This record gives sequence, C-alpha cells and structure tokens, in this order.
Amino acid sequence: MSTNISIGLAGIGVVGEGVIKMLDERQDEINLRCNKNIVIKAVSAKNKDKRRSINLSKFQWYDNAVEMASDNNIDVIVELIGGSDGPAFELAKSTITNKKSLVTANKAMLAIHGDELSDLAEKYNVSLNYEAAVAGGIPIVKTIRESLSGNKIEKVYGILNGTSNYILTKMEDASSNFKDALSEAQKKGFAEQDPKNDIDGIDSAHKISILTSIAFGSMIDFKNVYVEGIRKIEPIDILYARELGYRIKLLSISTLNQGGIQQRVHPCMVSLQSSIAKVDGPYNAVVLEGKLIGKTFYEGLGAGQGPTASSVVSDLIDVAQGKILPPFGLAEKNRKRIKHIAIEGLESAYYLRLNVLDKPGVLADLSSILAKEGISIEKVIQRDLINNNCVSIVMLMHETKELNMMNAVNSIKQMTSVKDEPVMIRLENV
Amino acid sequence: MSTNISIGLAGIGVVGEGVIKMLDERQDEINLRCNKNIVIKAVSAKNKDKRRSINLSKFQWYDNAVEMASDNNIDVIVELIGGSDGPAFELAKSTITNKKSLVTANKAMLAIHGDELSDLAEKYNVSLNYEAAVAGGIPIVKTIRESLSGNKIEKVYGILNGTSNYILTKMEDASSNFKDALSEAQKKGFAEQDPKNDIDGIDSAHKISILTSIAFGSMIDFKNVYVEGIRKIEPIDILYARELGYRIKLLSISTLNQGGIQQRVHPCMVSLQSSIAKVDGPYNAVVLEGKLIGKTFYEGLGAGQGPTASSVVSDLIDVAQGKILPPFGLAEKNRKRIKHIAIEGLESAYYLRLNVLDKPGVLADLSSILAKEGISIEKVIQRDLINNNCVSIVMLMHETKELNMMNAVNSIKQMTSVKDEPVMIRLENV
Repeated sequence: MSTNISIGLAGIGVVGEGVIKMLDERQDEINLRCNKNIVIKAVSAKNKDKRRSINLSKFQWYDNAVEMASDNNIDVIVELIGGSDGPAFELAKSTITNKKSLVTANKAMLAIHGDELSDLAEKYNVSLNYEAAVAGGIPIVKTIRESLSGNKIEKVYGILNGTSNYILTKMEDASSNFKDALSEAQKKGFAEQDPKNDIDGIDSAHKISILTSIAFGSMIDFKNVYVEGIRKIEPIDILYARELGYRIKLLSISTLNQGGIQQRVHPCMVSLQSSIAKVDGPYNAVVLEGKLIGKTFYEGLGAGQGPTASSVVSDLIDVAQGKILPPFGLAEKNRKRIKHIAIEGLESAYYLRLNVLDKPGVLADLSSILAKEGISIEKVIQRDLINNNCVSIVMLMHETKELNMMNAVNSIKQMTSVKDEPVMIRLENV
Repeated sequence: MSTNISIGLAGIGVVGEGVIKMLDERQDEINLRCNKNIVIKAVSAKNKDKRRSINLSKFQWYDNAVEMASDNNIDVIVELIGGSDGPAFELAKSTITNKKSLVTANKAMLAIHGDELSDLAEKYNVSLNYEAAVAGGIPIVKTIRESLSGNKIEKVYGILNGTSNYILTKMEDASSNFKDALSEAQKKGFAEQDPKNDIDGIDSAHKISILTSIAFGSMIDFKNVYVEGIRKIEPIDILYARELGYRIKLLSISTLNQGGIQQRVHPCMVSLQSSIAKVDGPYNAVVLEGKLIGKTFYEGLGAGQGPTASSVVSDLIDVAQGKILPPFGLAEKNRKRIKHIAIEGLESAYYLRLNVLDKPGVLADLSSILAKEGISIEKVIQRDLINNNCVSIVMLMHETKELNMMNAVNSIKQMTSVKDEPVMIRLENV
C-alpha cells in the first residue's frame, strides 16, 4: 500500500457514523480498490458529547470544523453538516482554498453556491465530489458526469425525495390522508420534525437543479425551478388516479430544448405501466433520455445510512485515485447560462378535480370556460355525492398550454357553484 | 483545447459507424467534456468496399488492424471486430504491448482472455475499458467498478441479452411459439442469422462472468457459468407463469457467499410485481444487491447503434481524461480465485410442467417421487386435456435443493405415464 489519504469529517449524524463504520469495516477492500489507505484523522461536530453508536476517541477532535480544513495533516474534508449557508459553506470554501478536496452530501449548498464552489475547485485544482447529494445510493452524478458524458441528454427526471414518496405510497396503501401519513413517516424516521423542505418540494428542487447543470452543461439555476409540493393531494385524488390508470408521484423534471431549460417539481400523474410508477416508499429513481442512449432508468434507496455512506466513500475512493474532474462536468469557462422556460410555457395534459354544487348547468359552465381557453376534454367523471349538495367532478384534459389551463382554473374558481380549491395535477409522459 | 487523442478504429459495422457518427456530430461537446480533441485517425475492417452509411475516405485505411496498433500516430485502439479469438484478440494484445489503451465491446474475448489482457494492461500501464461489452447503454461496468466500489456486493443479476428478451416478450404478447418469435426477431434485426450465442445463453454467460469479476474482485471464471437457454420454453409455460403471478425471463445471476461464487444463466420465473419482470423487448436490466447499498436497479437498451456507441465514447473520454484504473477494479495481485459453487448446490423453488397420460395413480406416483427427495409441493394445476389422452400437470415446488430436484426429474422421466421431456423452470426471488 503506497500512501495514506487523511480525512477530516465534519458532521457526525446518521450518515457521518455510517461513513466511519464503512471505512472501518471494509477498510481492507476499500484500500485495495484505491491502492491507498483512506484514514479518518479528525472529526468535528456541533456536540462532542452526544450519545453516538461509535467511539470517536481515536480521532482528533475539532470544535470548529473550519480549523480542521487548515490542518496540514488532513488531505480531504467530508462535509456532512448540512444547510446551504453557515458553517457548511464556510467549511467548503475554506477546504478548497486550503487546496484540499471536498466531498459533500449537501444539496442545499450546491443548489445555491455550487457555481461558486465549482469555480473555486477549478482554481485550486481540487476535487469537489457530491454523489451523496442526489438520490442517495443511486450513482447518478457519476453516471451523468462520466458514463453518459458523450450524449446529448434532453430530459432528466425522477423521484428525488424519499420522504414525499413514502407519504404518497402510505396514502395509497392505507387510504390515509396526508396528515396521518406524514405523522407515521415522522414516527418511522422517514420524515423530519420540520418536514417542509421535503414535502413542499424544496429538497427535490435542490437536487434537480444539480442534475440539470451536469446533464445540460449549464450553470445552476435553482431559483428558477418551479416548485409545488404534495400537501394538497387528497386520498380521493389517489383513488381517481388509479381508476384512470395512473399513480401520483412527486416528480422532479428538467428538459432542454431549443427554447431553453425548464425545471419543475410537482405532483404528477404517471401511467401505472411505467417503471417510475412502481417506485415505492423510500426509494428514489432517475430517468435519463437522450437521442443516442434512448431511455435509461436507475432505482435505489434515496437516503439512509448505508446508501449515503456508500456514495460518500465512492467519492473518497475517486479522490484517492487522484482523479480531478470538473465538478459539473465542464471546465468553468465552458459552462453556459441557458435561458429558463417558465412553467407557463409548459404543454401538458391535466387532471382537474372540483367540488361543485349539484345543480343544473354547472357542467355546461365549466365546459364553456375550458372551450374558451381552447382546452379539449378527454374524460369526465361525475359520480360521488359528497355532502352539502356537492358532487365531485373529475376531468382529464388533452395536452394544452399551462397558461390556458391557469386561466381556465382562475375562471372556474370564480364560479359560485364551485366550492373548495380546485385540485389540478399534471400528467407526465414517462 | 490542449491536445489530440488519435483513435484507430477496427471493425466498422453498426456500432463502428455509430461511434464515427457520434464523434463527428457531437465533436464540440465531447471535446469540451474531456478537454482534448478525440479524433479518429485510422480505420480497419474486413471489407473496405462494403456499402456503408458513412464516408471513410478521410481516415487512413489499414487492411490489417494489428499494423494499426503499432502506428506511432495512434494513441488508442477501439476494437469492434468481435469474436473471442482471432484478429480481435491479436489486435488487443498488440495494442496493449504497443503501450496504447484499448476500448472494446468484445464480451466473448473478455470472458475468455480478460485476465490475460488485464494483466498485460497493468504491466504496460494502459487503460482497458469495455463499458459497451455488457448491457449496451447501461453504464454498469463503471457503476460497479467505481460508484459502488466501497460496497460488499453479494448478488448481481439481470437481463443481459436483448435478443432472448425480445423473443420471450414476443412469445408472450403474440402467444407465438419460440420458432416464430425467433424468425420475427431475425426479420427485425433483433436476432442474428445464427442466433445460438444469444438464445442458448452463451452471450449472457460471457457478460455475467465479467460482472462477477468486477463485483466480487475475483478472476474471470467463464467456464464455470452454468448455462441454459430459452429454446425449451413454450407458450403454455408463459401462460401458466402469468396465471401463477410470474413472468419468464432469461436471467444471468451471480452470487457470492462464504461457500464461494455461483454463476448461472437460465430462464427464471420472476414475480409479476418485480421491476425486472417489466423489462421488455430489447431492454436490458441489472440489479445489484449489497448490505450497505440495499438493492439498486438499472435499466436501458441492451444493444443497438446509439447505446453501444455511447458507451464506447464514454470509455474514450475516460482515456482522454488520463484515468487509468485496473480493468476489473483491483490490481492484478489482489484479484482472487474464488471457489465456484456448482448448480447442484443451488437452493431454489421450481416450476415443473409434465405431459402425462390421463389415468389413475399418476399424481400419486409423482407425489411419492417428490416426497422421496424431500421436496414439498406448493401448488398443483391439472386441467388441460391435450391430446392422445394426455393432460398437463403443473407443479410449483417450495424451496429445495437443485440436486434433489434433478434426482426427482430423472425418476419422473422414467415413468411410463410421462410423455415428452419435463419442463423445469427455476423461480428466482427478485
């Protein structure tokens, strides 16, 4: 064995402990794979005395992770602190400017500061690896950045948030409502106490903005990701979806065409027959489409100790093997700012569910509003008498422009016979 | 752009033309990705004057590919000749001993001479890349070799032959028999005129022996792959499979446990609910299972011009970026000879279909043969009166030892009331 690669690890939660365990338990095999000794030398975390399943006494302790980055005995920093700014970002900058490679699982930081960090990494000629930041155990970053790097990728999409997917699966299996499914997810550790980032689509948006940049050779454009979460989905929508041949999934979608890049995160109805419809519970999936490669599909656990640690360790092995690649696949000067296409520019088919008063003329009014916007109806289901003399009307619209759909929904909301907020879900061809 | 990487391309069939087209059409993007100019300088093929969709006049022509390997102006050889021995193998050796990197799609050559070539590549410090050799457009070689390299993988399996999968899908969709489905596949270009390698499982065996070596850090052990093709599958088996909740797929399976490595290729019944059951037509899929990563699933086109060219080009980009990794993931001295477990050591559940004379006592005789071997029956279907007073009996056996099953089937064959060859298909937990 030739030389040691000394690691400084910052942030010792579930994933941090997983990395320490994996490097310990699989030490021999890992060192053989990279022909170096990967050794954790120092660690840092917010709370030194927290109860942990591993013994930290053999590592040097740093109260301040940034100081660890300037320790001359450390070659690589693994950042598992989390959060887009604050200590994580300070540590990231300090690591790179100290000419050390950085391995991180921090999607929020990359979505917001990825361009700046990539620029710094190039300037200081170090690696910035982040396989664990997107889709846990699925090696999608390397796949796009290296394996499919000769392709013209035109669409990247997937289920990138295990928490939302777990909740949607639960709602379907147990016919439970959103709140109950969420609280069960929290009990089982699949959702955090503050679940906003996951269920409102923000975490997914972080991740799709990163994949977009690698796939399309563009600068990161997180602020222009259209985001809609899963709070408004009700069990009845899931039932209607199944009746119509669909399942509801929170998808992250990015497309490149001549007009530019469109990035969006929202609940979608996907065909029951599609591979992605069958991705359940805590699993993630990513689909890449391109002219040469056709369609490739990747599925695996989206989070958790094992899969995430596995991705961190593969990044470390890459660093140990001395490979320094541009973080987002292209040298900084070649990354492009590509125009973004707003959600209004989308063309899609739609599902619309309304609670309306059960009286004559309502369907006629609805139809005429849709006709006025040039929207053609594929299917109508009017069946359930709910309560207060209301019935639910479900409509599937043929492909139309989002802008027309928005106008129609706004007009429909004004109708006195329409009660409650309309539920609109986009259909996605997958 | 810094320097040129000059390519010599040997073998200009569908894939070779695809590589030339891809490097031409996506030249700028590819060169940006690797920060070098990848340029085809010379080509060689069996027939210079064959009608081709591309113009070869701008390339230097070699009648003899081996001479191209000693051309000082060539940096890398792409070998697309095919065949385990003969010109392909001569070219491969000559390329490496001339200190040039080799990119190949030749699974037969790697299955048989991979260890020797890997040893040579290490000695001469060049790359031996072969992403296109397994599962076409699915970047499974790099995924195992690099992305999951820290894991302890325990099982690798998948659908690795698009021709067989196309035929099985066709038999199911059109209720056609094997011969008709094969001839349609041949007409559509999904099967070769001599389809033996594909339908008898040999191509799958080549591929699983390669994946086994990367996943488990072992020497290639092609000769010990148990191989059974799809010729014996009949439409009625496909119908029974569906009725029982299964589909029939030709799987390649490799497992590592304390006893050693077991490699096998044979038709399997897989649960209708599994991801792999839904991989249809010319698609391939690979599943990796390990303690840390859990289960990851990869699907994409298994062959064809675009996907295969894409994999060849990604290998070239890796070479251009100067990465030289051990071809099978470990330095030669660290690759192990791991004991192989013969098919007789398998424990599996089984499907058995028999044509028997419709007379009293047959089921009793069958049951007593199975009982004698300690095999427990999960389900029996006896229904269809076929002809000549025969009925078909289908049985599902609980998990048992292959050896007991073999003994039972041999005894059953001796029964005078059993007509035709029994059809036995293993059930696989996927």
